[in-house]
Amino acid sequence: MTSRTPPLARRMSDIAPFHVMALLARAHELEAAGRDVVHMEIGEPDFASPEPVVEAGLRAISSGRTRYTAAVGIPELREAIAAHYDRHFGVAVDPGRVVVTPGASGALLLALAATVNPGEEVLLTDPGYPCNRHFVRFVEGSPVSLPVDAASHYQLNAQSVADRWGERTRAVMLASPSNPTGTTLGAGEIAGILDTVRRHDGYLILDEIYQGLVYDAAPSSALSIGDDVIVINSFSKYFYMTGWRLGWLVVPPHLSEAMERLAQNLFLSPPAPSQYAALAALDPDCDALLAARRDAFVERRDFLIPALRELGFKIPVTPGGAFYVYADCSGLTGDSFAFALDLLEKQAVAITPGVDFGVHRAEHHVRFAYTTTVERLALGVERIGAYLGTVPRRG
Amino acid sequence: MTSRTPPLARRMSDIAPFHVMALLARAHELEAAGRDVVHMEIGEPDFASPEPVVEAGLRAISSGRTRYTAAVGIPELREAIAAHYDRHFGVAVDPGRVVVTPGASGALLLALAATVNPGEEVLLTDPGYPCNRHFVRFVEGSPVSLPVDAASHYQLNAQSVADRWGERTRAVMLASPSNPTGTTLGAGEIAGILDTVRRHDGYLILDEIYQGLVYDAAPSSALSIGDDVIVINSFSKYFYMTGWRLGWLVVPPHLSEAMERLAQNLFLSPPAPSQYAALAALDPDCDALLAARRDAFVERRDFLIPALRELGFKIPVTPGGAFYVYADCSGLTGDSFAFALDLLEKQAVAITPGVDFGVHRAEHHVRFAYTTTVERLALGVERIGAYLGTVPRRG
Repeated sequence: MTSRTPPLARRMSDIAPFHVMALLARAHELEAAGRDVVHMEIGEPDFASPEPVVEAGLRAISSGRTRYTAAVGIPELREAIAAHYDRHFGVAVDPGRVVVTPGASGALLLALAATVNPGEEVLLTDPGYPCNRHFVRFVEGSPVSLPVDAASHYQLNAQSVADRWGERTRAVMLASPSNPTGTTLGAGEIAGILDTVRRHDGYLILDEIYQGLVYDAAPSSALSIGDDVIVINSFSKYFYMTGWRLGWLVVPPHLSEAMERLAQNLFLSPPAPSQYAALAALDPDCDALLAARRDAFVERRDFLIPALRELGFKIPVTPGGAFYVYADCSGLTGDSFAFALDLLEKQAVAITPGVDFGVHRAEHHVRFAYTTTVERLALGVERIGAYLGTVPRRG
Repeated sequence: MTSRTPPLARRMSDIAPFHVMALLARAHELEAAGRDVVHMEIGEPDFASPEPVVEAGLRAISSGRTRYTAAVGIPELREAIAAHYDRHFGVAVDPGRVVVTPGASGALLLALAATVNPGEEVLLTDPGYPCNRHFVRFVEGSPVSLPVDAASHYQLNAQSVADRWGERTRAVMLASPSNPTGTTLGAGEIAGILDTVRRHDGYLILDEIYQGLVYDAAPSSALSIGDDVIVINSFSKYFYMTGWRLGWLVVPPHLSEAMERLAQNLFLSPPAPSQYAALAALDPDCDALLAARRDAFVERRDFLIPALRELGFKIPVTPGGAFYVYADCSGLTGDSFAFALDLLEKQAVAITPGVDFGVHRAEHHVRFAYTTTVERLALGVERIGAYLGTVPRRG
């Protein structure tokens, strides 16, 4: 056939792959060869979808609820999401502001597409969720990744946002709890950032996909601070529905109509069976199970962090949420990517190198996901200890 | 709360809603009030997902296959899609060129994102699938909708593409069979267009989502003409899996890696249960059922077209595929949108006004979808006849 190669669009040179995928592929090779790999690299809970969710999904498919739905989601799910905010956070949300999407990925795409013009800047954290800067790039915006560290709890604040806001800045995009650092933003901090954003007539886009997974404070939503925040959420993490691909956003009232037009054209409809399954996830009957799983994550975190510190990883801020530890490994290696690869080869422990989350001191950080049992985490820690015993310490 | 309204992104002024949605909402109101509406507006087959697909979907959920998959789809589905091309069209496709997406919508987004720069033109037909021009706009490209009519079978050809190709043109985007016109492109026509595209080192993006639904010729794929065509496909139409939201594309080899990076960042993964269900759709066991349904569409088409012509609609080209008739109603009305609304109010028949597919003589066209039984189509035709008997004829 032909072998011509017309040029790729320029944006492709700014879209990085997930580096952990190469590592994951190697982990699978090792497993195929009989090695027992401890997975601490995966941002996906080990817990299965809750039984009521599974049952509801099965019922949806059996009863033929496998057709297109409204582009913004079935009305009963939008209402259930609105009721969820009322029940858990005491916030009144008009269901008309709720847009159900194919994963939080779809929600991020809609949020940026509706608000950011080509050349306009969006402020982000480095480290941060890598797709965020790619979504900004995708809509031809200009991602401005601001280095953050332990001193600011790996988050932006009113001051850093105000300092960096410029002529072309349109939005700031944060996550609480954040991936990879697991740190949260308090209500006062969000209010401060929002004040700054309001002064500039910009948008605050806040990712709350790890909302229920907070361990040192009650769960909260930025929607209680202002209805002009664009909030992103997901059924993937707290509700254990990753592969069902369902998320949502809550938008300021003046964006509802634009969201519907965009969703019609970009997605047609979110997956139908997943929407009916998600109704069960929001049912109060699921509350106890979800709370118990949250408690299991606390136990894992409280095991893992001291154990990693003992091994020489620096964790200056104890992460208050999500299921990640972003650890400073600069005392152990100057190249976190090589470190992760070598650890996998020698001890069959998989972790994610910092490079997947940005460039700011990425070579000095790795991310651990506690998406496996305490027993497996303990095995991982033991193996890392053995590995570190065989390589020369730095500094 | 606040009532501030920061500006929307400029692209939003170019993204039109589906006008049929307003009509559909009114149809639902009429139904809620007890009216029996004949639906000929919906681009979704009335047939349910095939039983083996349903069974496979149920098994996937029961067995916990509800987790993230590879961003480009599970390997067995990519292989099954490749095998599908071999079995039905005699085309060898490397599974590495197959990218499974959240609906054909996801496939269109990937195809344009990887190939079109801001300001670059993509040639399209008017009338055409409305989302196409919005996807082009979305990546900041410039959609160039070329008016087509019966003389060119509502398609572009080598000459019209060559005539319009300019400095900034990057791609041409066609569909065979097309929505809304149901017309197809022959192998010779595709080869001619592809030659032109090759001379300009551009891309041909061909939507084949109605591939198996052709009635006057054997189904075919442009992949047999060149591996440098970007082919879009879907499980929605021929495989009756609309709400499962699963599509795919087959890309030239040099685009595979870019597609994977984009899919990782934009989607993470297509819906998992849908992928396992889709495996059953491609199984030879489904062939007979799918062929029988295709035959039912032939019967519907062959009933509907003469009946509409009898009523005074002009259908100068008999559509060879999909499940649409794009009818010229200029002898009956000068305002197809008002006509569709009035027909719905007076006779409870829902059809789609031309405005949803472009601007070229849109006011003189309506689209009929034969996604319902011959009995219901006959009732619709009878009611349209009654309606036309009560309004003055034009011309």
